Amino acid sequence: MKIVQSTPVALSPDLLARFAAIVGEKYAVTDPQEAAPYLTEERGLFQGHSPLVLRPGSTAEVAAICKLATETKTALVPQGGNTGLVGGQVPHNGEVVISTRRLDKIRAVDTQSNTMTVESGVILANAQQRAADADRLFPLSLGAEGSCTIGGNLSTNAGGIAALAYGVARDLVLGLEVVLSDGRIMHGLSSLKKDNTGYDLRDLFVGAEGTLGVITAATLKLFPKPRSIETAFASITSPDDALALLDISRNVAAGSLTSFELIPQIAIDFTVKHGPSIRAPMSERHPWYVLMEISSPRDDARTTIESILADGMERDIVTDAVIAANLDQRNAFWKLREVISPAQKPEGGSIKHDVSVPVAAVPQFLTEADAAVTQLIPGARPFAFGHLGDGNIHYNVSQPVGGDTAAFLDRWHNVNDVVHGVVAKLGGSISAEHGIGVLKRDELPHVKDPVAIDIMRAIKHLLDPHNIMNPGKVL
Amino acid sequence: MKIVQSTPVALSPDLLARFAAIVGEKYAVTDPQEAAPYLTEERGLFQGHSPLVLRPGSTAEVAAICKLATETKTALVPQGGNTGLVGGQVPHNGEVVISTRRLDKIRAVDTQSNTMTVESGVILANAQQRAADADRLFPLSLGAEGSCTIGGNLSTNAGGIAALAYGVARDLVLGLEVVLSDGRIMHGLSSLKKDNTGYDLRDLFVGAEGTLGVITAATLKLFPKPRSIETAFASITSPDDALALLDISRNVAAGSLTSFELIPQIAIDFTVKHGPSIRAPMSERHPWYVLMEISSPRDDARTTIESILADGMERDIVTDAVIAANLDQRNAFWKLREVISPAQKPEGGSIKHDVSVPVAAVPQFLTEADAAVTQLIPGARPFAFGHLGDGNIHYNVSQPVGGDTAAFLDRWHNVNDVVHGVVAKLGGSISAEHGIGVLKRDELPHVKDPVAIDIMRAIKHLLDPHNIMNPGKVL
Repeated sequence: MKIVQSTPVALSPDLLARFAAIVGEKYAVTDPQEAAPYLTEERGLFQGHSPLVLRPGSTAEVAAICKLATETKTALVPQGGNTGLVGGQVPHNGEVVISTRRLDKIRAVDTQSNTMTVESGVILANAQQRAADADRLFPLSLGAEGSCTIGGNLSTNAGGIAALAYGVARDLVLGLEVVLSDGRIMHGLSSLKKDNTGYDLRDLFVGAEGTLGVITAATLKLFPKPRSIETAFASITSPDDALALLDISRNVAAGSLTSFELIPQIAIDFTVKHGPSIRAPMSERHPWYVLMEISSPRDDARTTIESILADGMERDIVTDAVIAANLDQRNAFWKLREVISPAQKPEGGSIKHDVSVPVAAVPQFLTEADAAVTQLIPGARPFAFGHLGDGNIHYNVSQPVGGDTAAFLDRWHNVNDVVHGVVAKLGGSISAEHGIGVLKRDELPHVKDPVAIDIMRAIKHLLDPHNIMNPGKVL
Repeated sequence: MKIVQSTPVALSPDLLARFAAIVGEKYAVTDPQEAAPYLTEERGLFQGHSPLVLRPGSTAEVAAICKLATETKTALVPQGGNTGLVGGQVPHNGEVVISTRRLDKIRAVDTQSNTMTVESGVILANAQQRAADADRLFPLSLGAEGSCTIGGNLSTNAGGIAALAYGVARDLVLGLEVVLSDGRIMHGLSSLKKDNTGYDLRDLFVGAEGTLGVITAATLKLFPKPRSIETAFASITSPDDALALLDISRNVAAGSLTSFELIPQIAIDFTVKHGPSIRAPMSERHPWYVLMEISSPRDDARTTIESILADGMERDIVTDAVIAANLDQRNAFWKLREVISPAQKPEGGSIKHDVSVPVAAVPQFLTEADAAVTQLIPGARPFAFGHLGDGNIHYNVSQPVGGDTAAFLDRWHNVNDVVHGVVAKLGGSISAEHGIGVLKRDELPHVKDPVAIDIMRAIKHLLDPHNIMNPGKVL
């Protein structure tokens, strides 16, 4: 089966007016300046264009838009906070944009069932805050949380820094309300922890990047709010030692181990050099660091983290450690982690990968990828950091010092190829948490099981026969 | 879209021989006595018949069976341990049975990645044991664990007593190997915690009850083995108080709260009366009990459970409590829980429901269902127990004392109707963990969103166009 590629056509003024009438003139954006924030993503890597950005205020309006789009074969791009990193939310071919940001109501919070029903345009940080106000935790947490939306988080199956303990976005949702391409609404909001009535459709829409329908609301899981949180930097000699420390940490802390981030010295160097008022966590330099966090419902996070670090030192795994002494220091630790990515920019070109491998294979992955990349481009600086506990490494490569940036970036696909080659060999994934979008679309058929690809194409055709939902993305 | 119902046809000797040749004569069962264990489920509620039970020894053999079945339009019923409670694994119309029990290899255990890859015929208890041997926990646990298989657990998305902390079967699987109806193999085994490369197909097959394909292997999640476990019975006055105790427990123990079972006095009465050497947990009688378990990677389960119970008593929620003093007593507590269901049998007819509602709605559900059932059948004895932490209640109704059993059981559908009516009103599910099978198939369209049902039918048609995979089940 082949997905029909949509041909961008100029939409008639009459059709634009019919779409605009659904949401009202005020929320039908055509002015280029007003539309700009919906068309370009923040890094400027993807530039879209669109004759019309629709900002519906209700599920019914989303349904009416999809119905009209199906009738008129008009391509749509659903968009949340426009923070995606793979171009999935960008109208590359002049599609009409459906921005969900006005779907920003928190419909219900149920502290007894530990659930919260929110519309898809709710900003992640607002969902977190609403949970905290109810003395609960909504654990999804990532760099863009101040502007990304729940709908985008679910459509991309976001991961982030707490996935180790609480899972990815998929694991945090109980039910969905989805508008299909033909405007029908699937009413699947549910607060049930267990429901075995037929096929699981929820997980089809989660991670589908808006290609199968528009998520308009979701029932999310809430958790008890941790009473004690401790954060530490531990220095180690190698990724193998990081794995050994992870094993100790899981055995001591189990579900209380909420973060376990691997960071190389080069990342500390870059952040200290380029980050705004960032200080190195330790006075001495070490090959690698682990940033770990323990969150407990009781008073015992401190004893737990101390026990892990003591054990690690006794076994000659941890060479040094600093536990955040107060909230400021904790924030400083996480600030450092947060600016690792932007701190690469002043060092010139950076070729990025969002990959995962089985946790046990991370050391081998790093050794082989480093060797392959530096053989390809002598002087290239591998820069690997990320969620070791999930086997999810942001494997970036900074250009050689003093080299030509454009020439380096021209090698993007070559570098991708060698890195993804190592990933494939180790049974890994070329997109651990950012999705496929357009950036990795053409690579997907080479790394995914062909039978799985066939089924995906068939499901796409089934749910979006006219290929109007985010065409050209994922498949 | 309408699913074509398969017409049972007598299979020609030639065709039977072709199927038999795939697995070899030894594993092609036609002898009625040898076939019997595959045709009747253990309660005798469903009686199937089949000309041929195939016992393939490899994924390739399963694929060859499905390929031939597609070519010849022969209906198949995949079967694991044959312990399902809704008739999903029974060949009601003379289908050929594919028993997965010989697919019993544990392919890999990776203690660093905390994963285990097993074939679908591995008995659940064996998977648990293999994990324990590697100093890890595979947490899925249910009454039938000595005979049910991983493939069956996944195909029915089994729940069980540890779902509160670790999730249902769906939450415990990372990747699947599946044979499709046409014999193609989807190679989706993966040890990755994060993988956002396209649509999630795994969760389509999990819970599909063998109607979309045959799961032949799975990569499962492992967890640290708990170092301390404490189990307690707490007596309470009402389901409302059970909810209040659940809230305390979750806030104190978070992920260490591994079980929270609600049990009424009538269940204690029945088990003491009819169970083999079962003793009441407390000398006095109480309206309700909670059986709770705390499992911790550290030494602190005892202080945690004591703190929960003390808090509950201080707030006048818990009226009495017994903590298991040793492993024997712990086993006795769980033995009591286990025989609750069989202990109903000597009390005459029992009409059963496996329902869930939002956790907060459990007390209202019990009140309204009890009222409706006893109004319908005066003297009927509501008998509700189960996984309160998941909102999943096994709402059974025993016949009036001294009443006519057959007459009572004739009311099965009337009782179902009123109970499911209350469930629907509260946004619940008519099958929390046992699935749909044939038992609830005809009821599904009345309780499920019609758009969701449409999509399910379309997906069924897509993946099984000739309706040969477990026809007549689920949809």
